[in-house]
Amino acid sequence: MIVVLKAGTPKEEIERICQEIHKQNVIAEKSIGQHKVVLGLLGDTAALNVEHIQQISPFIEQVVRVDKPYKRASQEFRHGPSTVVVSTPNGNVAFGQEHPIVVVAGPCSVENEQMIIETAQQVKAAGAQFLRGGAYKPRTSPYAFQGHGESALGLLAQAREASGLGIITEVMDTADIEKVAAVADVLQVGARNMQNFSLLKKVGTTGKPILLKRGISATVEEWLMAAEYILAAGNPNVILCERGIRSFDRQYARNTLDLAVVPVLRSLTHLPIMVDPSHGTGKAEYVPPMCLAAIAAGADSLMVEVHPNPAKALSDGPQSLTPARFEHLMHDIAVVGKTFSRWVQ
Amino acid sequence: MIVVLKAGTPKEEIERICQEIHKQNVIAEKSIGQHKVVLGLLGDTAALNVEHIQQISPFIEQVVRVDKPYKRASQEFRHGPSTVVVSTPNGNVAFGQEHPIVVVAGPCSVENEQMIIETAQQVKAAGAQFLRGGAYKPRTSPYAFQGHGESALGLLAQAREASGLGIITEVMDTADIEKVAAVADVLQVGARNMQNFSLLKKVGTTGKPILLKRGISATVEEWLMAAEYILAAGNPNVILCERGIRSFDRQYARNTLDLAVVPVLRSLTHLPIMVDPSHGTGKAEYVPPMCLAAIAAGADSLMVEVHPNPAKALSDGPQSLTPARFEHLMHDIAVVGKTFSRWVQ
Amino acid sequence: MIVVLKAGTPKEEIERICQEIHKQNVIAEKSIGQHKVVLGLLGDTAALNVEHIQQISPFIEQVVRVDKPYKRASQEFRHGPSTVVVSTPNGNVAFGQEHPIVVVAGPCSVENEQMIIETAQQVKAAGAQFLRGGAYKPRTSPYAFQGHGESALGLLAQAREASGLGIITEVMDTADIEKVAAVADVLQVGARNMQNFSLLKKVGTTGKPILLKRGISATVEEWLMAAEYILAAGNPNVILCERGIRSFDRQYARNTLDLAVVPVLRSLTHLPIMVDPSHGTGKAEYVPPMCLAAIAAGADSLMVEVHPNPAKALSDGPQSLTPARFEHLMHDIAVVGKTFSRWVQ
Amino acid sequence: MIVVLKAGTPKEEIERICQEIHKQNVIAEKSIGQHKVVLGLLGDTAALNVEHIQQISPFIEQVVRVDKPYKRASQEFRHGPSTVVVSTPNGNVAFGQEHPIVVVAGPCSVENEQMIIETAQQVKAAGAQFLRGGAYKPRTSPYAFQGHGESALGLLAQAREASGLGIITEVMDTADIEKVAAVADVLQVGARNMQNFSLLKKVGTTGKPILLKRGISATVEEWLMAAEYILAAGNPNVILCERGIRSFDRQYARNTLDLAVVPVLRSLTHLPIMVDPSHGTGKAEYVPPMCLAAIAAGADSLMVEVHPNPAKALSDGPQSLTPARFEHLMHDIAVVGKTFSRWVQ
Repeated sequence: MIVVLKAGTPKEEIERICQEIHKQNVIAEKSIGQHKVVLGLLGDTAALNVEHIQQISPFIEQVVRVDKPYKRASQEFRHGPSTVVVSTPNGNVAFGQEHPIVVVAGPCSVENEQMIIETAQQVKAAGAQFLRGGAYKPRTSPYAFQGHGESALGLLAQAREASGLGIITEVMDTADIEKVAAVADVLQVGARNMQNFSLLKKVGTTGKPILLKRGISATVEEWLMAAEYILAAGNPNVILCERGIRSFDRQYARNTLDLAVVPVLRSLTHLPIMVDPSHGTGKAEYVPPMCLAAIAAGADSLMVEVHPNPAKALSDGPQSLTPARFEHLMHDIAVVGKTFSRWVQ
Repeated sequence: MIVVLKAGTPKEEIERICQEIHKQNVIAEKSIGQHKVVLGLLGDTAALNVEHIQQISPFIEQVVRVDKPYKRASQEFRHGPSTVVVSTPNGNVAFGQEHPIVVVAGPCSVENEQMIIETAQQVKAAGAQFLRGGAYKPRTSPYAFQGHGESALGLLAQAREASGLGIITEVMDTADIEKVAAVADVLQVGARNMQNFSLLKKVGTTGKPILLKRGISATVEEWLMAAEYILAAGNPNVILCERGIRSFDRQYARNTLDLAVVPVLRSLTHLPIMVDPSHGTGKAEYVPPMCLAAIAAGADSLMVEVHPNPAKALSDGPQSLTPARFEHLMHDIAVVGKTFSRWVQ
Repeated sequence: MIVVLKAGTPKEEIERICQEIHKQNVIAEKSIGQHKVVLGLLGDTAALNVEHIQQISPFIEQVVRVDKPYKRASQEFRHGPSTVVVSTPNGNVAFGQEHPIVVVAGPCSVENEQMIIETAQQVKAAGAQFLRGGAYKPRTSPYAFQGHGESALGLLAQAREASGLGIITEVMDTADIEKVAAVADVLQVGARNMQNFSLLKKVGTTGKPILLKRGISATVEEWLMAAEYILAAGNPNVILCERGIRSFDRQYARNTLDLAVVPVLRSLTHLPIMVDPSHGTGKAEYVPPMCLAAIAAGADSLMVEVHPNPAKALSDGPQSLTPARFEHLMHDIAVVGKTFSRWVQ
Repeated sequence: MIVVLKAGTPKEEIERICQEIHKQNVIAEKSIGQHKVVLGLLGDTAALNVEHIQQISPFIEQVVRVDKPYKRASQEFRHGPSTVVVSTPNGNVAFGQEHPIVVVAGPCSVENEQMIIETAQQVKAAGAQFLRGGAYKPRTSPYAFQGHGESALGLLAQAREASGLGIITEVMDTADIEKVAAVADVLQVGARNMQNFSLLKKVGTTGKPILLKRGISATVEEWLMAAEYILAAGNPNVILCERGIRSFDRQYARNTLDLAVVPVLRSLTHLPIMVDPSHGTGKAEYVPPMCLAAIAAGADSLMVEVHPNPAKALSDGPQSLTPARFEHLMHDIAVVGKTFSRWVQ
């Protein structure tokens, strides 16, 4: 962290500022120029608050954070990319830069026994390793279908047994973590809850792998800080999922899929990266090209909404692929995955 | 809701579409033109899902919602603006378009007994009716001060008794509602939790007045739908609070205070409207002009961060006024409030 | 400007970097800490390019601009606010913080002789000092009305004579500057041309006062840099006009009026500030409250669209006030202007 | 276009509205429901103005455009994708969905004879078909390098002769079109000028192929309308170039590259699509993965900044590749291009 003092700051004030900074358990190194004095702070500056420092004196012109505010999520924290291994009935599946692409597929929400089991079997046959499906659904309107809740968890357990797929499903309330974790192999924290810090802290105390979706207007830094909450609570198994951000234009695509975030994250963090083009674009016809583009951008995993009959889906129908369309996409994913050496024959 | 069919939709398909729509308990009225057929849906369309309708047939070109998706929050739901009356030790305080401006003031977070009681007494003396102060603080970093939690609730209770002010404080977790509601006169749902639907549903079952802050990238419609969650759960006492939205420029002001949302909300909803220029701009020197602008724009209430020593604040120091600066602001608020006939002599 | 070097940068590389920086005619002062070396650059750093410096060495971790990139537009460039005085048939009108609020009113575009002369007389009678009206209109669609061009300039000249009002009209093409300047008392550079640098340079060489509208997604810094183009070309008479920025929500208001930019600009620049709530909100009913809010926020001038018959306007009808509504607004502006000591009895 | 009337609109008012609409040369078909009346407008509605219609009566609740506001740019205007053929010294090059990927490479700005000729030869050798290079540079600061202007055009002509590559360079001022067109094979209209309608109209009257960059906050519709200006002026040779949009997060990537716009555009327009990941991300290390992702997303062409010595570049150094890095990238582009059947062996 660097503190820039205004031209003409009196010597005594500089001393006072340095003393105040020392109280924060960091050292301030002075660089005295002709016009300005710059203080370089050394020590555990991640714990410092930029605003707090700024308020020490009206002579402080600017405080600049040079070190990143996250530690455990940072590239520097470990050597090489981390791998999140998830145990499923069909065996362990590894998410990470050094592993083949993992495909997660399934409906937005669990609607009934037949649909979820059939979908699980179909996406399994096409090559997916995980089934997604919402039991608790965050919906903008209180009058929209809110998910079947606890009973849907039971259906996911059945689908898991029938297909051998791992299960990824969302948890929205700290009170539900235990129930959901009893069924899910990966707990999803949704975009709207990315800064629900109570939830982050509590899923951080479980041993479960966590899929952390990016908030709809979360900066990369805020997203990594949300991951840091989970990591700091003791859970190292975090997968980041880009699912589209909010921009000024929502006429044709529901969100703006930020694919360049894949190489950006790669340069900042060791955590595995998933991309969800279904939510990211909101329209089924844009999903296949953006899945292939995500692989080319370097993603480690894809999440794709698949519904046996999108026209009848209780939620997110327009962005869901039919099982047949998904099977076709899996073929293309394999071809492109091989081109990038991210696919197992 | 209006359904536009593509040119050349076969007659039988039109019939099929109408039948599918009828299953949703609404009636489809046909308008057959030379090129296109338009269906106007009549009935309780608020419960319909645009996407769901769109998926009925590939011949559907566009589905347009004409009616608003919220009901209880809408202007049409009642005649005239609603008033939220809050009982405080100093007597009832009414929030709403037909009442004087209500000022809420206090520190970002409750730091210790002396500071919160002194601040309460100072803002009371200057003319505030409510004390704000965080016990549970949502912070971007897990390493930042998270609020003193339960013990801070006790201090707020003391400050309430010492000053007679009503208390507004945030609740972040469904598990804490009871504890917080035992002390607070108004429960705040923060910007990051505006779409924490579990929380909205549960605060909706309490009788407490709710201060619903706008999410940092929430559209007006999403905000009113969040209010609708609370109203639909049976709690009519919702106050909306604009606190700045996220835009492309954060260099000088932390957020973009959307003051025009005040007349926009006035035309759409009967609920009382508060403006928080402290979070809205992030910088103390911009707070006074934006408070006065908020009154001129038609706001019913103001929230202002006040700290006895902003330079030492554990959070949000840069946007906090000193008690002396706040007292001066209250004088200006009174002058402008009188100009708009929103102040009691 | 501050250059932060990575931990472990070799001594010789530090020397090489300093030498490269000296070639830019600035001095690099070293601050050598335990972990990092920080260079503070002294001299005319406004002319330096952050990116250029960053590329000197791969050991450079970060380059931070501490000084502002604009000079002539900055608060520090002169003592106190600047005044732009415009000569009109009715006498000189002064724009600036030390002067009463100036009101500019008129239709989006000049439609015909009768309408522009009548409107001029009506807004003059209500208290406006300038007539706005487009001869050349920037329109999203090539099929929309593009303005009457040169013939409209003649009508503006007539309206000027008939009413004594000053004329503000937009120039869109460097080839038209002379023609427009022959009629206009103030040349408007529109939002879409805020970064049309050819146009900025050329209007900077005229002596005319320039109204510089903020680009729809321009940061404050980009806006001030656009003003700097005009100032650097020798024309000190620049008025800044906020007219709404683009955000994620355009459902109810066409743009997001960024009123907090008024105190932000006040702290950064000496230039006079205008607010245009007509374009800023896009809806006539939101214009009056936002005019009053703009005064409270500290604006020096207001621009209001007025049309004798908004329903028949060739452009921007929905955001135009009728002359009667405008007259009523002027009464309120006077009341609020007096409250803020910005109105002449 | 659909006009929704408010509940309770009197019969006579409905008649009056229909008559007003007929004056616009379109027919209004009534659909009379229990609660609302909906008018479907038939005819050349592209020329109608939504706002204009809305103002016909206060009983109009909403006007919805169902038809697209652009015609010549639309998918429906022709059967199949269009091809823009550009004649270069090395032969004709075809841009379009049915042709191999075209790569455009070169420096941000033309700095001197040696650098531009060497760069041209290097990118040619690596497989590029066009040389980019700015003679006139739009720069945020008046104090930054503005391009060498006319003399740089001469150097581009030399580079064209030396390498046989086609030349793409930007034109910023209507006064410069002729000069630039004498050298360039493709005229670039930059992002900041996407809505410089004077410029669009004039380049539309030349026969030259036009590269139309997307404005930094332009919606897809605004972009296609800008293309429509050129097409309507008689020039059918328009290539669209995505170069990143402005979002709320600019900390790591300068812009947000909107790759999903590729399939979105494909579904809306027949025009060829280029992607520029150099401006789109602002950082050299993100350029290669995003080039490959652009191919996977379906782009027809790529624009890549290449500079012999990025650290010494007069502009945009941080986002430029070295010739060696570019050569390596071309190898990867070939591999991925072949996977998608968009590359010639």
